[in-house]
Amino acid sequence: MTVIRLCEETDWPAVWPLLRATFETGDTYAFSPQSTEAEIHAAWMEAPRATYVVREGGTDDGRVLGTYFIKPNQPGLGSHVCNCGYVVAPEAQGQGLASAMCEHSQREAITMGFLAMQFNLVVSTNERAVRLWKKLGFEVVATLPGAFRHQRLGLVDAFVMFKTLG
Amino acid sequence: MTVIRLCEETDWPAVWPLLRATFETGDTYAFSPQSTEAEIHAAWMEAPRATYVVREGGTDDGRVLGTYFIKPNQPGLGSHVCNCGYVVAPEAQGQGLASAMCEHSQREAITMGFLAMQFNLVVSTNERAVRLWKKLGFEVVATLPGAFRHQRLGLVDAFVMFKTLG
Repeated sequence: MTVIRLCEETDWPAVWPLLRATFETGDTYAFSPQSTEAEIHAAWMEAPRATYVVREGGTDDGRVLGTYFIKPNQPGLGSHVCNCGYVVAPEAQGQGLASAMCEHSQREAITMGFLAMQFNLVVSTNERAVRLWKKLGFEVVATLPGAFRHQRLGLVDAFVMFKTLG
Repeated sequence: MTVIRLCEETDWPAVWPLLRATFETGDTYAFSPQSTEAEIHAAWMEAPRATYVVREGGTDDGRVLGTYFIKPNQPGLGSHVCNCGYVVAPEAQGQGLASAMCEHSQREAITMGFLAMQFNLVVSTNERAVRLWKKLGFEVVATLPGAFRHQRLGLVDAFVMFKTLG
C-alpha cells in the first residue's frame, strides 16, 4: 500500500535530490535546471498550501519515491481552483504512483474546499503525463504555442489541463 | 499624447488608491477585494520585471490615469512568455488608454526578449476587455469553467488569452 503523508522539513534533505535530478532534465517542469535549493524549497515547501511525500515502505527514512504539492492557482477570487505538481522517482515509475498521488491530491483538494484543479504548463512532449491526466479526468483546455523551452527539443507546445472536482 | 513611463516608488501613493478601488469591485482581477496595501505592492511593484504608470498631462504629479506591470508568466523554461496586468482609472476610460498600454507593453516585452504574452484569467463577463484583447491580436486559447468568483455574479468562466509577439 502506498503511504502518502505530509512532507516535513526533516524529509527535505531526501526530497531535494529527487527534485533537483528531475528539474535538471529540463523536459517536464518550468523550474530552471540551474535552480538553487533555496528557490526550489520556496516553491515546493513554502509557497504551497501543503506538500506530501511517499517514502519506501511507508517509513520515515525509506527512499523518497514521490512528492507533490497543492496550492491555490490564483489569489483571492481565483483561489477556489488549485494547482498541483507531482514528481516520481525514476526507480518508482510505472507502478501507479503518479496516479495514486493525483487521486490523493484530488481528495485533499476537495477536503480543503477547492472546486477544481488546473495544470498550467503540461509539456506536450511529456506524453505519459498527458495520457495519465486525461485518464484521471483532466481535459486539455488550451494549447500554448511554444510555451515550454525543452532542453533537448527547443520550444514545444504546452497544455493547460483542467478538472472540475467533486 | 499618452506618456507611459516606468512607475517609481514615489508614484505608489497615487497608484495604490486606483488599484484598491479597482480590486474592491471584485469583477475583473483575482486579487481579493480585502487585499492589503503590502500585498498589492508586492504583486504590482515588487514581483514584476517592470511596472509603468500614466499620469495626467505626462507630469510627475498629475492624476494617475493608468498603470500596468510586465513579468515572466512562468519560471525558467517558461519565462519567455510574459504576463501583464493593466488598470485604467474610471475617469480615463473610453479614451484608448488600455489599448495604448497594451501596445506599449508588447513593444517593451519584445525589447526584453519575450516571445509571447499570456493572460491567465480574463473574466468572461468583462466583455470590453475581451473585445479589446481580441482586437489587439490575442486569442482565447482556453475557457476555464467557473474559475472566477465574481462579487456580483458568483462563479463565472475565465479565459486564457495568448499572443505570439514580433
